[in-house]
Amino acid sequence: MGVVPTTDLADHHFPVEIWRLTETVFNPASNLLHETLFTVGNGYIGLRGAHEDGYGGPTSTTIDGSYLNGFYESEPIKYPETAYGLARHNQFMLNVPNTKLIGLIVEDEPFDLLTGTILRYERSLDFRAGVLSRAVDWRSPAGRQVSIVSRRLVCFEHKHLFAMQYEVTPVNFSGRVSLLSAIDGLVRNLSGGDDPRVGSSVSGPVLELVDTELTDGFSAITHRTPNSGFTLVSATATSLALDAGCSSTQSTARKNQRLEQHFDLDIKLGQPVFLTKYGTYFSSRDYPEDELPARAKATLETAGAAGFASLCAGQQEFLDQFWRRADVEIAGDDALQQGMHFNQFHLLQSVGRDGKTNIAAKGITGEGYEGHYFWDSEIYVFPFFLYTQPDIARKLLEYRYQGLDQARLRAREMSHPKGALYPWRTIGGEECSAYFPAGTAQYHFNADIAYSIKQYVEATGDQSFLVPYGAEIVMETARIWIGIGNYTGDQGERFTINDVTGPDEYTAIVNNNYYTNAMARLHLEFAAELAETLRADQPDAFARLSQTIDLEPAEPSEWRRAAEHMYLPFDTALGIHPQDDSFLAKKRWDFAATPREHYPLLLHYHPLVIYRHQVCKQADLVLALLLVGNWFTLEEKRRDFDYYEAVTTHDSSLSTCIFSIIASEIGYRDKAYDYFMATARMDLDNTHGNSQYGVHTAAMAGTWLCVVYGFAGMRVHQGALHFTPYLPARWSHYQFTIRLQDQVLRIRVSDRTTEYQLVEGTLIEFTDHYRALRLTRDIPAQAVNMDQSGS
Amino acid sequence: MGVVPTTDLADHHFPVEIWRLTETVFNPASNLLHETLFTVGNGYIGLRGAHEDGYGGPTSTTIDGSYLNGFYESEPIKYPETAYGLARHNQFMLNVPNTKLIGLIVEDEPFDLLTGTILRYERSLDFRAGVLSRAVDWRSPAGRQVSIVSRRLVCFEHKHLFAMQYEVTPVNFSGRVSLLSAIDGLVRNLSGGDDPRVGSSVSGPVLELVDTELTDGFSAITHRTPNSGFTLVSATATSLALDAGCSSTQSTARKNQRLEQHFDLDIKLGQPVFLTKYGTYFSSRDYPEDELPARAKATLETAGAAGFASLCAGQQEFLDQFWRRADVEIAGDDALQQGMHFNQFHLLQSVGRDGKTNIAAKGITGEGYEGHYFWDSEIYVFPFFLYTQPDIARKLLEYRYQGLDQARLRAREMSHPKGALYPWRTIGGEECSAYFPAGTAQYHFNADIAYSIKQYVEATGDQSFLVPYGAEIVMETARIWIGIGNYTGDQGERFTINDVTGPDEYTAIVNNNYYTNAMARLHLEFAAELAETLRADQPDAFARLSQTIDLEPAEPSEWRRAAEHMYLPFDTALGIHPQDDSFLAKKRWDFAATPREHYPLLLHYHPLVIYRHQVCKQADLVLALLLVGNWFTLEEKRRDFDYYEAVTTHDSSLSTCIFSIIASEIGYRDKAYDYFMATARMDLDNTHGNSQYGVHTAAMAGTWLCVVYGFAGMRVHQGALHFTPYLPARWSHYQFTIRLQDQVLRIRVSDRTTEYQLVEGTLIEFTDHYRALRLTRDIPAQAVNMDQSGS
Repeated sequence: MGVVPTTDLADHHFPVEIWRLTETVFNPASNLLHETLFTVGNGYIGLRGAHEDGYGGPTSTTIDGSYLNGFYESEPIKYPETAYGLARHNQFMLNVPNTKLIGLIVEDEPFDLLTGTILRYERSLDFRAGVLSRAVDWRSPAGRQVSIVSRRLVCFEHKHLFAMQYEVTPVNFSGRVSLLSAIDGLVRNLSGGDDPRVGSSVSGPVLELVDTELTDGFSAITHRTPNSGFTLVSATATSLALDAGCSSTQSTARKNQRLEQHFDLDIKLGQPVFLTKYGTYFSSRDYPEDELPARAKATLETAGAAGFASLCAGQQEFLDQFWRRADVEIAGDDALQQGMHFNQFHLLQSVGRDGKTNIAAKGITGEGYEGHYFWDSEIYVFPFFLYTQPDIARKLLEYRYQGLDQARLRAREMSHPKGALYPWRTIGGEECSAYFPAGTAQYHFNADIAYSIKQYVEATGDQSFLVPYGAEIVMETARIWIGIGNYTGDQGERFTINDVTGPDEYTAIVNNNYYTNAMARLHLEFAAELAETLRADQPDAFARLSQTIDLEPAEPSEWRRAAEHMYLPFDTALGIHPQDDSFLAKKRWDFAATPREHYPLLLHYHPLVIYRHQVCKQADLVLALLLVGNWFTLEEKRRDFDYYEAVTTHDSSLSTCIFSIIASEIGYRDKAYDYFMATARMDLDNTHGNSQYGVHTAAMAGTWLCVVYGFAGMRVHQGALHFTPYLPARWSHYQFTIRLQDQVLRIRVSDRTTEYQLVEGTLIEFTDHYRALRLTRDIPAQAVNMDQSGS
Repeated sequence: MGVVPTTDLADHHFPVEIWRLTETVFNPASNLLHETLFTVGNGYIGLRGAHEDGYGGPTSTTIDGSYLNGFYESEPIKYPETAYGLARHNQFMLNVPNTKLIGLIVEDEPFDLLTGTILRYERSLDFRAGVLSRAVDWRSPAGRQVSIVSRRLVCFEHKHLFAMQYEVTPVNFSGRVSLLSAIDGLVRNLSGGDDPRVGSSVSGPVLELVDTELTDGFSAITHRTPNSGFTLVSATATSLALDAGCSSTQSTARKNQRLEQHFDLDIKLGQPVFLTKYGTYFSSRDYPEDELPARAKATLETAGAAGFASLCAGQQEFLDQFWRRADVEIAGDDALQQGMHFNQFHLLQSVGRDGKTNIAAKGITGEGYEGHYFWDSEIYVFPFFLYTQPDIARKLLEYRYQGLDQARLRAREMSHPKGALYPWRTIGGEECSAYFPAGTAQYHFNADIAYSIKQYVEATGDQSFLVPYGAEIVMETARIWIGIGNYTGDQGERFTINDVTGPDEYTAIVNNNYYTNAMARLHLEFAAELAETLRADQPDAFARLSQTIDLEPAEPSEWRRAAEHMYLPFDTALGIHPQDDSFLAKKRWDFAATPREHYPLLLHYHPLVIYRHQVCKQADLVLALLLVGNWFTLEEKRRDFDYYEAVTTHDSSLSTCIFSIIASEIGYRDKAYDYFMATARMDLDNTHGNSQYGVHTAAMAGTWLCVVYGFAGMRVHQGALHFTPYLPARWSHYQFTIRLQDQVLRIRVSDRTTEYQLVEGTLIEFTDHYRALRLTRDIPAQAVNMDQSGS
């Protein structure tokens, strides 16, 4: 339909600052959304940006969530009409005990942002410091004025640790002040309602209380999850620093599952008091159950010994490292620069780095999609980490290897005697999709994983992952194509794949989805090639692998044969590639008759109505133009883009970035920029209207893809690196860094030239606009930008 | 796959008796199944054949259900992953208070079939008398012997009434005997488990107690359904007749929702005592709530005044009338004759005759499919009633007219601004299908209803239904085809219909399902023709109808155009009609590798696995060969039959009868007979293994279809009647009667001749093996049977 979602700037204008996100006005109406945006996390712990103190707004304006990547409860899925092989258990990311609670009472007046008067308010998330800070000057109803400065960080260097500092200064009085530091174990998850994209079906608390410990300064609570059977220790250590001459009494209290540390103080005008709180979570997903309390305690002690400032310094150092590789510099549009940094920072905050976890569709910022991992990880997020932080990329693939046995079991449930079928959505590895036409039917996911492994090996040259891990995944998953495909045509010359769903969820259970067939072809080729290479070069490893997966000698040639005969249709009348066998024969959606408030269509039309029409939720064929782009001519890409753009609603957040990239490639520069804009500030401007339930990590990574794959035209085909950069009209330059094997290359695109500089490594070869370049260390190469006329 | 389900005679051999079903051995292992088979009902009240007394077997061996056709509770449908427009409420046939309970205590020994010794046992359902009788001679553990004879009938003539008589004779003692007559209001429904074909998701009692009344001899209990909001009065009147010289005391007792009438007797050796019980149900679906108690009381009083014998006589008279028209006489195979009668009797017991109810897939004999009405009613059951009891056929169509407003609402939910879309499964008219790919997607149902209306009008000439009722349904439903279809092809010359599911539920959401397109074509033609005829012949009626449904003048010609361009594909290579656009390109199911215990496939393979293959649950294209049979040559039918037979599992009970009919037509007589066998005794022999949850009404009617459409080759095309009869090899003759307009024709097919006799009316014209015959009253015509070689 060609309409790019427009930015809704309703009530959340943030000052344009390229390294920070700042809120200058306190407003309950935007609180829910801002809790998401101000989340701090380290890939394991995610703490939503709920105020730790004094938020007395309506419950509908806050989801005070704390999440742990990979920590979930499971529940049986109940189908109103069931069938064999449907996913049996859902897993959902649990809201874990709220350990960040702090309270302040000034004489007898509790601090509340909704009472008294806010004289000054600023909250800010710093992308380089990795700290969320808030400064509030507040006058109580009785006229007492305090200045409160609080800071919060979740340590990137310490998986299990977060830290807070809370500073209170009496501005116009001396007297009694009470501070409270609490853990609340009685937490619950959001429940979903009618929007399939939000929350789980669970209401009420889930965690079962096992134990508590409460001594002066130390609070710990142990829970168990009834179904998934995990144990979790949530603990905090709280201490107070105050000026000599001020007095304090300390006590503890326990109400229900709320463990409280009380500090009653007499403080003097102008003299600040500092409350420091360290928090930690340890679960039996990581360590034996009986070690958890001691580990929690040790972590808090180490933190206390190091001190808050030291943790801040460590955080800064970690982020310096991160930004050195990850930073995409955009000169000429600071709002976009801010969006880019915000997105990159949130990706780092969301991504699991332990090999046991992955990156959820909403990161660890909210309960949308229940904390599930999807193909977004491989196809959208993975390249960002691959080319900037390859160690993290490897961890994402290791997570998939961990799930290989479950994928094998799932394949058996789906009647495949051999092979592995990865779950469409999961946390722990089990298929959790309760609507198979847009879940299990997306067989392309197997190929998406294989594609990432191929990308990884080509970009890093890391053979230690390929054998035995990567190869085992690639071959096991390749087998499924042989199981579901069949040869048709007069001479059986076409390998066809029936009854699958492609990326576009507005079309389901179709035959020969182009994207699926294309990715399957690549997957089968790669698997066959791997097998042949291994057999020749590493016969022992190949023999071991063959035994592990019971590989028949003929299988690799079956894979190659299927790849060679893969059916990849082309419609000669229209000169385009059909999305599937029947897509082009369907009625085109009547966009003119669809009111604006009927988007996203999925919330206003029955699936059958949508399926019956030519209408796409997202890039599908257009994504194939990117991932197997070397199979198409530029003219084909242009025709495909034109055709599919006209019938795509971009109701999925996975869409606009891909359209931006292809628009760049085919010279539609205005469109490329518009689609980029719709991607880059999706969460900051809440253009999809649901960022309050979590950020869109795929679109965040898509922002990076738009610049690197789109504007700079980077492609890696068979390990060879290509660029076709151009500069968007409104910018003065942009710059980014990528790592390929041991080489680190910086690319700076200006108005007339692109400067390539090898900042690590010795030699790199690539093409710039199809011209071969060869670069050695520290001698920048300059290439004149080709003039490509925009659309 | 060509395998006809074989008969499993495990443990329920019934004596072969053509007018009765008799059980001669009491066996808890077959109790659950026999409860279904021995159900007595009158189209409204259905009482499963549970023993009214003394069944102390395991709870898993009994479902003591009492059901009222059309009386249901509703509940929200909860989807684990929801979407717009999915059915929101389920309706399920409620198990209503158990009013038939009787108890017997001999001195202090309660009568129980599982204690003491059964000296004689016989239970029998008489298809001509309409009475279930049981005779038991029992010796108690202490050695007291009683003879018990009980009889039970649900009155066909009195919708709300059933009656029981319970006779006890002490055989070897005189002494104290207690009799009990009870209502139990605390009943619950069966809950389903993993088989989608069984029961509902509700567990625990549903009915809310409103009131009870308990006086000597009279018990009544009033309930309300919480969600559907119906009120129900269940009441009984119990009386005792005993010999002079025996004494009795009467009392009442109430336990929870159990209302008891107690009779303590002193009786003498050899002198029988008779307990007579009348039961009734009245609900607010039929009458205003405040009238219900009085109506219940009046019904019981009238019954009491008439007496049990008089009710039995009335029952007999009603059934004499029924059998006069319905009886299909089969000479030469009494087991089949028994199956035929059993099936016809159960159809009469199951069918709603009040225009507010229909016939459920399982009748009112069990909770399978939750008491829902499906397309089975129109396509399988309807012809039996149409040609034998046309008044009942009309009532079935009136039920659909009652649901027209809800079908309009459903069409709006499905984004049709005009028209009506009938629900795939329902009781009260709301769509209850919770799995839309095999539910709402079966758009063909709209055409199935129109087909029945066309059949009805042609067979009865009853114009009073057509205008205004029938025409309104036909036109409103026809509109949906215009909404979901579109013109494709180079010149837009094909009207195609995408994303629907045909009858075969092993294939879902396909394009151009042949059956659907064919039925839509017939439907559109019929609607256009109706509009044109009405406009010309009854302009006032047409104007009223046009206004009611807001008919645009151009619509009928749009219908005609779509019908004329309807895409009905033919595969020239195979010489067959493809089931849908992609069916023939799929992989054929590997039947050789499928163990016998993996049938039905739906309980052993994920839907995607099934959908991906050429495998049919049931007749789909083969059903089109019957319903629009005049569009095909015999050779085409043979090729289609051969092709689809090889890939059909007959996992659906709707399949074998259709295969039998077409096998007859194309001369495959052995197959026709085998498929007929598999149909005719499906429930008696429990060949599908689930008759314990209710009979298969469609297959029961299919038995009639096999004889009339199959062996006798009857077809009615555009009102013209045709026969191509032959005699199955094992039979000596068969005979049946059909009514067409005012003519009643008896057809008797013997070895060498077919005798046609007009038993009512004045003149009938038809063809016998394409030879025109013209028959007047009481002068039989004889036709020599053509020799058709069997397969």
